[in-house]
Amino acid sequence: MLINKERAGRIMAENGLDALVATTPENVAYLTGFWILTHLRHRVRQVFAVVTADDLQADLVISRGLADAAIAADTWVKTYRLYGNFYFSTASLDNGDAEAKRLMALLDSSPSYPAAVDALAGCLAERGVARGRIGVDQGSDTIGLGRILEGRLPGLSTAPAYDLFRQIRIVKTAGEIDRIRNAVSVNESALTEAIAAIDEGVGENAVAATFFNEVARRGGLPTLVCVGSGPRGALPNVTAGDRIIHRGDAVRFDVGCIASAYHADMARTAVLGKPSSKIQIYHDALVAGEQGILSTIRPGVVAGDLFHLGVDIVRANGIPHYERNHCGHGNGIEGYDLPHIAPADRTVLEPGMVLCVETPYYEPGFAGLQIEDVVAVTETGCERISSIEQKLFIV
Amino acid sequence: MLINKERAGRIMAENGLDALVATTPENVAYLTGFWILTHLRHRVRQVFAVVTADDLQADLVISRGLADAAIAADTWVKTYRLYGNFYFSTASLDNGDAEAKRLMALLDSSPSYPAAVDALAGCLAERGVARGRIGVDQGSDTIGLGRILEGRLPGLSTAPAYDLFRQIRIVKTAGEIDRIRNAVSVNESALTEAIAAIDEGVGENAVAATFFNEVARRGGLPTLVCVGSGPRGALPNVTAGDRIIHRGDAVRFDVGCIASAYHADMARTAVLGKPSSKIQIYHDALVAGEQGILSTIRPGVVAGDLFHLGVDIVRANGIPHYERNHCGHGNGIEGYDLPHIAPADRTVLEPGMVLCVETPYYEPGFAGLQIEDVVAVTETGCERISSIEQKLFIV
Repeated sequence: MLINKERAGRIMAENGLDALVATTPENVAYLTGFWILTHLRHRVRQVFAVVTADDLQADLVISRGLADAAIAADTWVKTYRLYGNFYFSTASLDNGDAEAKRLMALLDSSPSYPAAVDALAGCLAERGVARGRIGVDQGSDTIGLGRILEGRLPGLSTAPAYDLFRQIRIVKTAGEIDRIRNAVSVNESALTEAIAAIDEGVGENAVAATFFNEVARRGGLPTLVCVGSGPRGALPNVTAGDRIIHRGDAVRFDVGCIASAYHADMARTAVLGKPSSKIQIYHDALVAGEQGILSTIRPGVVAGDLFHLGVDIVRANGIPHYERNHCGHGNGIEGYDLPHIAPADRTVLEPGMVLCVETPYYEPGFAGLQIEDVVAVTETGCERISSIEQKLFIV
Repeated sequence: MLINKERAGRIMAENGLDALVATTPENVAYLTGFWILTHLRHRVRQVFAVVTADDLQADLVISRGLADAAIAADTWVKTYRLYGNFYFSTASLDNGDAEAKRLMALLDSSPSYPAAVDALAGCLAERGVARGRIGVDQGSDTIGLGRILEGRLPGLSTAPAYDLFRQIRIVKTAGEIDRIRNAVSVNESALTEAIAAIDEGVGENAVAATFFNEVARRGGLPTLVCVGSGPRGALPNVTAGDRIIHRGDAVRFDVGCIASAYHADMARTAVLGKPSSKIQIYHDALVAGEQGILSTIRPGVVAGDLFHLGVDIVRANGIPHYERNHCGHGNGIEGYDLPHIAPADRTVLEPGMVLCVETPYYEPGFAGLQIEDVVAVTETGCERISSIEQKLFIV
């Protein structure tokens, strides 16, 4: 299970909400376990999940055509509520295997509705919140769901809830951390292969393709493939080009992927041959800054304070002019979760928060240098989830 | 250029709109050419594009940290409007190459704002629509942009515009069709490799991985990887499992990807060894249905009528009990564009519409069979963009 029920219940109570409706693929997956790759190609898909404050056990609202995906996914759902039409021939049902029989049983036994909003209104009524106050995630809502539901259920009041979902998800459950571990493992295996692909005469494109293909081969989906060599590394969102990597070039990797719905995001820098002393000194300063943040992370620390600490350490260790807008961010079922390791973020760290901590440096005309790791806040400090060495790689 | 200016201008006039604001990655890319992979990991990213009715030349609102990506992308933008802070060291600027100099010039010369909504309000004011009526794409709006902008600019009125963007994008430009051609080429090359990977003793997983990896190798991003063998092919959203493919099994592929921001979506069925006569007859009926639709597509035909035609042909050609909820959908910068080849859709086809036409059949206990092609409506009929044979593949 992914949902943090204790936290969800508390935040719902604080906001006077009897139920939450999820609309984004991420929030639906968080409440139910239902996530499929094809969400990527649907800007708006009418898949909804509903939890009520009494038990936080989700109902899932899906079209009949998605019923097989609901069975295949590792879901924890109280009631599947299906809508629309979908046709299966029943001519060979007697030959059906267990998977087919479960699908047919789900289609036959689940409450069915003409349309998604009918299913949602029916769900809220049956779950006893027809006259309550509910939060509606506006993240994938293009039809004004709140107003529609208020029209259907006189007495219901609605409020936007996308930001509440983010507040709930800020403290990860064990199930979430397992998935993040897996995504990080895919990501850093592919990163290691990509670093190894650097060689004399090899272009940025080939190195980036190695990362991309190695993620795919491990069942992940690449989401961030910044690979820049020499001065191109100073482009923060660099797209690998046909530039050939030369001896002495720093190659900056800022790379990420999704696996089992969860994100990973890491950075390392590698040099072909002997690094200049400037590259080595600057990179050492960035590592010191990142490690200084990691060794300070513990429950009770304020996210924004980590930012100032990291910048100060980098400045004291070799880059006196170092400036930065943030030194990291939450990581989870969204690639940019809360909190933000940035001056304005006063979030107090708690065990179970998962952070990407980073100290990038961009100097056009010279290079880009960066280190970034994924860590989980523990009871006493933090545990590094990414495991490859925190150093300037020499190839 | 991707935007259909004639159509955008007409639909804006019909809806009394002086400007359109795009919020989704798809609609921003459509107006400006700006699209990057990392959008995937941001549920909500404050990247906005604005066109006004006078010239439909877009302004792009991005954070300063995305300026390099705006330069790298093949964009057509009137004014870049930057917000927030981002730090580059300028110590080595004299050594900067052309790319670095363009980045610095863009950062120096573009209007800058504290936050994204400041940039958006500034843009609307400068473009002369501060007291106008504008459409705001609600597809990625979690902050209530319309209300915020109305508060900033007394006299401005706003209306939701996500559906208007879909109406504009329904007729593709030549630039869009080029990108769709490329995505289809990536997709069908990978599909061909995956079909060739079917062999005695090979599992579904290995065949699906071939598709996934071959898309990645060609620079695409897989978005739809349904590969099911034997009776598992009858699961509409089948996730490849460890089932070993047996002689006589039908293997159903419904596969898609994104390349250069555009989608492809195709289906084919392959049999290992000799197909049963039932598989062959049923599949021939599905091909007849799909080809019947393709040979009827021309400007003036109603999308919903194609649905009934397709179903009737399949029934007359070997599957008398054939039922289906739709026989296809638009395809473009969203994977499900308009129109829908379904009974209720009364869209009259026009040249430049791009359709995925499909006649899938799901019989649990037996098999799933499907064919799906991507076609463009021309002045006189339709052109098939996907090019592989429309047949039951025998491996």
